[in-house]
Amino acid sequence: MERAEYLEAIKSRMPEKRYIHTIGVMETAIQLAQNFGEDVKSAETAAILHDIAKYADEQWMIEIVKDNGLDERLVSWGPEILHGPVGAWIAEHEFYISNEDILNSIRFHTTGRAGMSRLEKIIFIADMIEPNRKFDGVEKLRRKSEKDLDKAMRACIRHSIKFLVKTKQKIYPVSIECYNDLIDND
Amino acid sequence: MERAEYLEAIKSRMPEKRYIHTIGVMETAIQLAQNFGEDVKSAETAAILHDIAKYADEQWMIEIVKDNGLDERLVSWGPEILHGPVGAWIAEHEFYISNEDILNSIRFHTTGRAGMSRLEKIIFIADMIEPNRKFDGVEKLRRKSEKDLDKAMRACIRHSIKFLVKTKQKIYPVSIECYNDLIDND
Repeated sequence: MERAEYLEAIKSRMPEKRYIHTIGVMETAIQLAQNFGEDVKSAETAAILHDIAKYADEQWMIEIVKDNGLDERLVSWGPEILHGPVGAWIAEHEFYISNEDILNSIRFHTTGRAGMSRLEKIIFIADMIEPNRKFDGVEKLRRKSEKDLDKAMRACIRHSIKFLVKTKQKIYPVSIECYNDLIDND
Repeated sequence: MERAEYLEAIKSRMPEKRYIHTIGVMETAIQLAQNFGEDVKSAETAAILHDIAKYADEQWMIEIVKDNGLDERLVSWGPEILHGPVGAWIAEHEFYISNEDILNSIRFHTTGRAGMSRLEKIIFIADMIEPNRKFDGVEKLRRKSEKDLDKAMRACIRHSIKFLVKTKQKIYPVSIECYNDLIDND
């Protein structure tokens, strides 16, 4: 499928604001892919589809997790955690994506994980720093992403954890595995 | 064993500064136990023994973990994480403590865990706020500990995680289980 077809397919699944965010992620991911030698088309596809499940019904997502043998731990977490893995499932079963790296980039774009691929890091970072994002510290993350993908990834996951603790939200254990892995490999 | 005997027994195992810290933890833990209806003698014993393994040889601690079926994950972590579980082992096997609540309070005094008992929370908090501790925010934690043990515990674990992320140190997964549990039960 070409870019225009993917964009057309996702547009009806999300509010305009989220669609604009998705375009931002796509453009940022393409830029990062070019800078760091990643396949640009893969980055584009993963970016367009990354939030495909963002507005899916929570109960339906839980059924997808249960019926398809996805990580059982997901069931007790909300849509913020569910929409990545379920989005990867939609990408595979509705859009017939078979590239496992693209699927993992969608799957782990919110939580990260230990041992992320280059493409996974690109989508995670692009999601966080695309031009429509506005939060304290985003400029610093953007600057880091111009120089070093691993340092940018570490800065992004550190920012996420700090934000969750500050706002008293639970932390998905896989994000800590991601953080510890990036600290270990510093 | 009486307080003086315990203190005598630990004194030779640590530098003076750590001994003074231990006295601070003991006094704070006794105060918290009195305020929140916990057994004072248990709090005193757990506090005196909490850092018994703080200066134990790392390789020896790893042997203790391996030879005694302690949590296998500990082996890949440093003395900061090892000294709690190994301290509990020493308390049990050298000081013949059989009270599981005291042992758990020593075991989890650095990491916390999901489902902490009142005594476990008291030792964790006392370790963090005793009068010799000096860090930004300690006064706020002390004030919280005067009013509500659970709120104080949550504030302490949030402080710990923020500190680890700020200083780019790995986070033991059990601390995240502790944090998530306290957020869930807010």
